Amino acid sequence: MSEARPAAHQLVTRTWSAGAWSKSPDAVVTEEPLQLLLDGEPLSVVMRTPGHDIELALGLLYAEGLIRSARDVKRVRISAESGEKDAAGIDVDASLVESNHIDVHLATPAAKRPQRAMIASSACGVCGSLMIEDLRHGLAALPDGPTVSASLLPRLVEALRTGQGVFDRTGGLHASGLFSASGEMRYVREDVGRHNALDKIVGRSLLDGRLPLSDAVLVVSGRAGYEIVQKSIAAGIPILVAVGAPSSLAVALAREFNQTLAGFARGERFNVYSAAERVT
Amino acid sequence: MSEARPAAHQLVTRTWSAGAWSKSPDAVVTEEPLQLLLDGEPLSVVMRTPGHDIELALGLLYAEGLIRSARDVKRVRISAESGEKDAAGIDVDASLVESNHIDVHLATPAAKRPQRAMIASSACGVCGSLMIEDLRHGLAALPDGPTVSASLLPRLVEALRTGQGVFDRTGGLHASGLFSASGEMRYVREDVGRHNALDKIVGRSLLDGRLPLSDAVLVVSGRAGYEIVQKSIAAGIPILVAVGAPSSLAVALAREFNQTLAGFARGERFNVYSAAERVT
Repeated sequence: MSEARPAAHQLVTRTWSAGAWSKSPDAVVTEEPLQLLLDGEPLSVVMRTPGHDIELALGLLYAEGLIRSARDVKRVRISAESGEKDAAGIDVDASLVESNHIDVHLATPAAKRPQRAMIASSACGVCGSLMIEDLRHGLAALPDGPTVSASLLPRLVEALRTGQGVFDRTGGLHASGLFSASGEMRYVREDVGRHNALDKIVGRSLLDGRLPLSDAVLVVSGRAGYEIVQKSIAAGIPILVAVGAPSSLAVALAREFNQTLAGFARGERFNVYSAAERVT
Repeated sequence: MSEARPAAHQLVTRTWSAGAWSKSPDAVVTEEPLQLLLDGEPLSVVMRTPGHDIELALGLLYAEGLIRSARDVKRVRISAESGEKDAAGIDVDASLVESNHIDVHLATPAAKRPQRAMIASSACGVCGSLMIEDLRHGLAALPDGPTVSASLLPRLVEALRTGQGVFDRTGGLHASGLFSASGEMRYVREDVGRHNALDKIVGRSLLDGRLPLSDAVLVVSGRAGYEIVQKSIAAGIPILVAVGAPSSLAVALAREFNQTLAGFARGERFNVYSAAERVT
């Protein structure tokens, strides 16, 4: 592990447990975008935990069939802050001023750009700490309200699990459940893809003329990363409850756009990472 | 839930539990690609569980800012086999001959194609049951061997968890561990992104001149979907062990390319879905 970049962010969270609130230090996994360039041209943006970025870039290029061995790589340029040097004889130039960038130059320039399977978008306008600033152009901060009782949230998680239990015989499905702030279940969707279950709920809400979902609580069965938070803010959802852990970027985004983000919602316990005033 | 498409595939698996093998019927979650078109032009391919495809497509277009309400959609064309009709007054034409396709026509044609955040590739050559056939052009079946003792696999899962426990204070990290067939740990990588941890291991192996990884056992902390299996086969890994569930497409791919795929590896128990002869 390159220790130049932190793999976890420290922060203080509010914890609801057995009917009472407490505050304590906590750590969330670091999630940041990496702009991957090939021969100086933007190829893909990958959300990742910083560290081992050279490995990640070469692994992606291998999966795309663009390189077969280290000999296919002439040179790697990488952000100065990455602190990465080790590349088994490949020339590594760690001097890029922009953060979270890596540029792989091939020994023989690629005959064609890859056509499939490169994940997410090809270019990241501002791949560093300015990313949230950039999102301000497309997203609006959520208005205050509604409020929900802390004791309601564990019941919603339980309701999602019960609803899911009927359908999921496979152990392989992610679930998202949309509830009203008073706890009525509106929709439950399940999918092998974490984001798909949320996209289906937003699509259903659109068909039913319910967007923006300003009275809603969304419960997701897994973790809360950047995309889940971004998509739920775009749909106007004020309260997001994840059974699993949030990422650093998820927390930063929720704080910036006034979304209440709760995580580790298990049994009668959960943590609140942002906009805690909606949970009373 | 549209019940026209199965959300789970039935199959027979071999289970190792408490030192003995058994065979039993099992279900895995269905994973298939969906080709999304916008105004007749390929826009994105999404791996998903069939069902609620109209909701999924509209939710994705909403997240991209391409539609704001159902009024922005003139017509939806969808594969006949989907059986989907409900679209809140939108004209739905369920007559596309190709399977796993959906084509959304906007009331006002999009001024520009979306530039960011559309997941994965834009076009799927053969998005139906022929997908594995298509992959044959890029992937080779793995040679037979090596063999490992069934009792070794739970120890590797435990070793990954112990290694991860040191680093992961956040509960938010996916881990991948690469071991030799005799059980030596080579690399462990962790990342907020499930595929990134594997990409980092493949990148490391490439730097160390170890590809293809024909003697390796890969252990992943989460589920095994299409991409994990595809990437590990591309790296030549003969044995893949997942702590979580596999998807239908993961199992089909592993069977086609002679990879041993084990899932639900917890405690002294795991299921084997393909190429069981490598586990003795």
